[in-house]
Amino acid sequence: RFGYFGKDKPEVVKLLLCNLSGCLTDGQIYISANGEEMVSINTRDQAGIDMLKKEVKVILIEKDPIAKALVDKLSQRMSCRILLNVDDKLEMVQKLMKEEKVEWKDVAYLGNDEPDVKCLQLAGLSAVPKNAPKVVLNHAKYICHNAAGHGALREFAEHILLLKKKAKSQEEQ
Amino acid sequence: RFGYFGKDKPEVVKLLLCNLSGCLTDGQIYISANGEEMVSINTRDQAGIDMLKKEVKVILIEKDPIAKALVDKLSQRMSCRILLNVDDKLEMVQKLMKEEKVEWKDVAYLGNDEPDVKCLQLAGLSAVPKNAPKVVLNHAKYICHNAAGHGALREFAEHILLLKKKAKSQEEQ
Amino acid sequence: RFGYFGKDKPEVVKLLLCNLSGCLTDGQIYISANGEEMVSINTRDQAGIDMLKKEVKVILIEKDPIAKALVDKLSQRMSCRILLNVDDKLEMVQKLMKEEKVEWKDVAYLGNDEPDVKCLQLAGLSAVPKNAPKVVLNHAKYICHNAAGHGALREFAEHILLLKKKAKSQEEQ
Amino acid sequence: RFGYFGKDKPEVVKLLLCNLSGCLTDGQIYISANGEEMVSINTRDQAGIDMLKKEVKVILIEKDPIAKALVDKLSQRMSCRILLNVDDKLEMVQKLMKEEKVEWKDVAYLGNDEPDVKCLQLAGLSAVPKNAPKVVLNHAKYICHNAAGHGALREFAEHILLLKKKAKSQEEQ
Repeated sequence: RFGYFGKDKPEVVKLLLCNLSGCLTDGQIYISANGEEMVSINTRDQAGIDMLKKEVKVILIEKDPIAKALVDKLSQRMSCRILLNVDDKLEMVQKLMKEEKVEWKDVAYLGNDEPDVKCLQLAGLSAVPKNAPKVVLNHAKYICHNAAGHGALREFAEHILLLKKKAKSQEEQ
Repeated sequence: RFGYFGKDKPEVVKLLLCNLSGCLTDGQIYISANGEEMVSINTRDQAGIDMLKKEVKVILIEKDPIAKALVDKLSQRMSCRILLNVDDKLEMVQKLMKEEKVEWKDVAYLGNDEPDVKCLQLAGLSAVPKNAPKVVLNHAKYICHNAAGHGALREFAEHILLLKKKAKSQEEQ
Repeated sequence: RFGYFGKDKPEVVKLLLCNLSGCLTDGQIYISANGEEMVSINTRDQAGIDMLKKEVKVILIEKDPIAKALVDKLSQRMSCRILLNVDDKLEMVQKLMKEEKVEWKDVAYLGNDEPDVKCLQLAGLSAVPKNAPKVVLNHAKYICHNAAGHGALREFAEHILLLKKKAKSQEEQ
Repeated sequence: RFGYFGKDKPEVVKLLLCNLSGCLTDGQIYISANGEEMVSINTRDQAGIDMLKKEVKVILIEKDPIAKALVDKLSQRMSCRILLNVDDKLEMVQKLMKEEKVEWKDVAYLGNDEPDVKCLQLAGLSAVPKNAPKVVLNHAKYICHNAAGHGALREFAEHILLLKKKAKSQEEQ
């Protein structure tokens, strides 16, 4: 299923929604006795977000609560918006689509677990990291060759840009 | 041996006992000069515990002493009980079985080293992460495809729920 | 392409330029709530730099801003110069070449992403870690068998020394 | 070469010398801006040292300087002696052999880089982690299937105990 997108491929992705934990990060949470939590991101993935920003709005979403100070740091480093405590991802994505005035065909979605299934199915372009649980693998249109937090987001970003370029060159013909 | 459980498969798992270090975590302990220790867990495994909680009681056990503050943090994040300094795991499990009024056939056990061998043999359902030492691999009824601290617990949780579902559908027939 | 360098192999490497993030480190940045960032290096790679130092000047370059205290620590541990905020790598390398009075044939370059492409093409000897994005793999003269932050730099250092030894033995003949 | 030891196999290992960085740890050093360094060990390897202790004295050696507080923490957790700043490993091992009144045939050595080559050659039993640089792989009598800091030491410990058991059973015949 790598690289195949079926018939109605998105003309132009305008909005990328990406899970924070398990997509941007590898899902690992480091816990120390002093009560602080730590996560890690990869500069390759950060570069992937930077590549997209000129053409695509990127928003990170997260189901679980995360320490505010940590979110602030992440948001600042990635320079993009992070939405926390998103219980119903479908509802949230629909709200964001209204805000951004885009349709499902304009949305790219990178998810990694059960709460993402509906959005993975509806989004014009959707992907999961290669190490996502079986239950979600079948619902994504693209399975990354890279693991979460170690290049999956970068790979998906390159993929989105490639498709946009193709769509543009077709338009111009 | 993946996915095969022999004849007397457990009708209904009621209690899951899981090692903390080397099962929930990958066994890695980060040590810094200021005297603090740090461990990491994966949100996939945390989601696995959450999936079980409606039907199965989950208790984490640990042979080694761990800084109390760290255990409190872990216990709060996983919202389940953690038992420390468990020298004799068999004895402890038997005590917990009495408390919970369950038999071995109702117990699922995820272990990773020699002190777990007896419990792995006796539990109705038992598993080890794929990277467990050879000495324990042969005593588990199920060998996870995922490594400790990186999805093994999640995989075992999904497995338990699948078996419970099967047992229920057989009952109803 | 492993181990093959085409016709004009460098007689003597005098200067090694290496990306900090994604070459010396694995690109992973650990972020904790207290606002501190953390990176990791491997002692094998540190030993690689030490092996080179008698014969080759090593300079680390980095596009992104990094906390000054962290850079000081890294610079002290590696005992080599680190240049930050390098927007245009080609320009910077040309400036350094002037300072060191060397030509492209005397330069070895270890890079890992798009901003490194020009330098990878021009340097007498160039390499990327095995897990570099596709877009740069084709521009390096050598693809390391080891991943970034886990031996790639060490491997490249051994490679450079081997070539220098060969060049020397040919000269003496 | 796995599991083969040639003719003069050690009757009884009495002393195990093991590198700290790159053997007990995976060689990774985490560096944060506040100036602290952090390393990680695996509980499997710690259990390996514990298994040996009844019969074999274990001493950790390290070429590089390490923060004293960090060494104290490690030494306490592993409950074994750690020797730092060991420039000449051969000399140090010979000194320790005198102290312990043992010969080379009684010594097991786990090393991972060039400074270990002589000791790897002389020790009755010697090993390297699977991911050691090429330059040392050929000098060890045993190449672990596990990587440094992720089970190599545990594997070597089990190997030593197996050989001791065999030697004992031969004696008794």
